[in-house]
Amino acid sequence: MTTANNADNFTAADRDALYKIILGRRDIRSFKSVPIPDETLARIMQAAHQGPSVGFMQPWDFVMIKSIEVREKVKALFERERESAAVFYDEPQRSHYLSLKLEGILESPVNICVTCDPFRGGVVLGRNSIPETDVYSTCCAIQNLWLAARSEGVGVGWVSILKQMQLRQILGIPHHIVPVGYLCLGYPIEFPKRPTLEEVGWRKRLEIKDLIHFEKWGQETYPGWEEFGDSLRGSE
Amino acid sequence: MTTANNADNFTAADRDALYKIILGRRDIRSFKSVPIPDETLARIMQAAHQGPSVGFMQPWDFVMIKSIEVREKVKALFERERESAAVFYDEPQRSHYLSLKLEGILESPVNICVTCDPFRGGVVLGRNSIPETDVYSTCCAIQNLWLAARSEGVGVGWVSILKQMQLRQILGIPHHIVPVGYLCLGYPIEFPKRPTLEEVGWRKRLEIKDLIHFEKWGQETYPGWEEFGDSLRGSE
Repeated sequence: MTTANNADNFTAADRDALYKIILGRRDIRSFKSVPIPDETLARIMQAAHQGPSVGFMQPWDFVMIKSIEVREKVKALFERERESAAVFYDEPQRSHYLSLKLEGILESPVNICVTCDPFRGGVVLGRNSIPETDVYSTCCAIQNLWLAARSEGVGVGWVSILKQMQLRQILGIPHHIVPVGYLCLGYPIEFPKRPTLEEVGWRKRLEIKDLIHFEKWGQETYPGWEEFGDSLRGSE
Repeated sequence: MTTANNADNFTAADRDALYKIILGRRDIRSFKSVPIPDETLARIMQAAHQGPSVGFMQPWDFVMIKSIEVREKVKALFERERESAAVFYDEPQRSHYLSLKLEGILESPVNICVTCDPFRGGVVLGRNSIPETDVYSTCCAIQNLWLAARSEGVGVGWVSILKQMQLRQILGIPHHIVPVGYLCLGYPIEFPKRPTLEEVGWRKRLEIKDLIHFEKWGQETYPGWEEFGDSLRGSE
């Protein structure tokens, strides 16, 4: 209500806060031994539950894990998967891969497995053409969670080096439910300025102008992009 | 740096701004005939590009569509899909479904098709176990885009009632690229207080306490949840 466009009821300060949070979000793998207060966790979870979903399906569930015994099983599964994935790299990449710290399953105070129930809600409006929109919705909810956590000073690390079948067994998740994201939450040692994999020289950030197509795939960049493309600075 | 925990460098105002944006985000299907300034669009796109991605893969591309001819083809594809999906509903749900306005493909000034390239980056770190993490990453980028747009007063509508194969043909998208989200962007007539499908009585918001499991699937709610679960109010 504060700007020329009456649909825009956020201030420039609100907008800038969001951009700072988006730019400052990181995948965190090193945590302090500090618990997350319940009320903080509740706000973060509510932010996830406010995610968009196809046909208002809300297909997500959240398995919160504090038990060290359960997390040790997940960590053991991660270790096997890490070793298995290393086989696909040649040296020197293999040693580099194995030297990286990729998770904080045991150090973080809370792990959360975010799942997707493909059967929730019966015939879901808008899901007839692309059934995978259930998982897409769940991922959007996870990004809400991730940003909410960042705004609270809580780091999130997404552990993707896990087999879904074995993870289901450890957590007692029914066969028809998809474990989409296994997240470690806690107060980080630091929020690095850049993504870890960029920092260690594993992979560079792509130029956004190379990712924009205009009217059709592969066609000239959107006019004016050269001028405005850098208006939101990267997080260096 | 302003709170007890030195990893938290966001203020309470920043955090509250994020929560307001998350709570105020809607799927928008009715737009004003007002263009989006290029610099606004650039900030929104940069926010998307700052999404998390498995192995820093950044698998996304963005096809921006302003051409009315192209959008008419997409709209025609939507109409067929809508009709096709209606067949799966019985009355009175079928008539209700067909009465709903589900997209603003032609009214919105810009459509953006966000795609995922499963081959980008070769052997991607962290993607050995769950290859679908490429699409998961793309969805997280879309959620960044959606929230950034909301903070700018720009509405986003995700049109999921489209066949991916035909959409590829219309936009010239190669076979190996996945069109994940087809989005309509523009200044909305309004940002409704509640999701449209909740408003029209199609489906209710679930209780978050029913979606939380503790230590294991199906097990008692997280202790303390009853007390804190409502600490972030819904957007009614």
